[in-house]
Amino acid sequence: MNARDLQDYLNARIPLSCAMAVEVLAASGATGVELAAPLAPNINHRDTVFGGSASAVAILAAWSVLFLGLRAAGRAGRIVIRRNTMSYQRPIGGDFTASASPPDATAWSRAVAALDRGRPARIHASATLRCAGETVGVLEGEFVILPVPQ
Amino acid sequence: MNARDLQDYLNARIPLSCAMAVEVLAASGATGVELAAPLAPNINHRDTVFGGSASAVAILAAWSVLFLGLRAAGRAGRIVIRRNTMSYQRPIGGDFTASASPPDATAWSRAVAALDRGRPARIHASATLRCAGETVGVLEGEFVILPVPQ
Repeated sequence: MNARDLQDYLNARIPLSCAMAVEVLAASGATGVELAAPLAPNINHRDTVFGGSASAVAILAAWSVLFLGLRAAGRAGRIVIRRNTMSYQRPIGGDFTASASPPDATAWSRAVAALDRGRPARIHASATLRCAGETVGVLEGEFVILPVPQ
Repeated sequence: MNARDLQDYLNARIPLSCAMAVEVLAASGATGVELAAPLAPNINHRDTVFGGSASAVAILAAWSVLFLGLRAAGRAGRIVIRRNTMSYQRPIGGDFTASASPPDATAWSRAVAALDRGRPARIHASATLRCAGETVGVLEGEFVILPVPQ
């Protein structure tokens, strides 16, 4: 699944990704995911990005890196967000990106091993928001991957 | 500012509120804010509500109760979200609501007093998500109200 495939998947299955005009810039379970979103559909009453949009694009990036990692590992699973913390470090005055790196390798191996035993796997994924070269926010997400009966 | 006024304000100034089809059910700085959103525009690939939508509607509710409280207190200020924690307790399988109660009275008095001295005021606001009578998620938000020079 490359950037185009992920774009099509998000647009088809998560309509809010269209409303936020999310564009997939990079999509790899091994090297990470980068999404972009423009200011206009995500603007607030102060002409900066609405916190809800910032948070939603960051959640999409973090979820996507797990989704791609799982496919790359040849595993099936249902990725569910359990909790997230979002820190808004600066107002976002223009188009922005959300980047998510793959999870820590040890934690990922442990998660895959849990799934292989048919057990739910807890995994952490984070995303960094940037605008005009500056970090403007950080999401820390706690996910659970539920095994899917084969 | 009643429910209709808040609805018009959100629709005009925060376009994502239209994309999520947010409806203002109740709007009071004194008794709280309740927003509703349907499943369809907020759906994900599992036919439940996308976490980013859940989080964004909860942020709107928490922000709105502070916005209305500030107006009711006759104060001007710019309400900025600094951080939030969102806990997703259950999958949201249908239309849902986000309810935000006014902040604790002592904390609110302290915030207004800070603004009256021309200082930024930290304030906490939370929102509870419900679907079919059950609590399905909770947002805890940390906001700062910045004084606006008169």
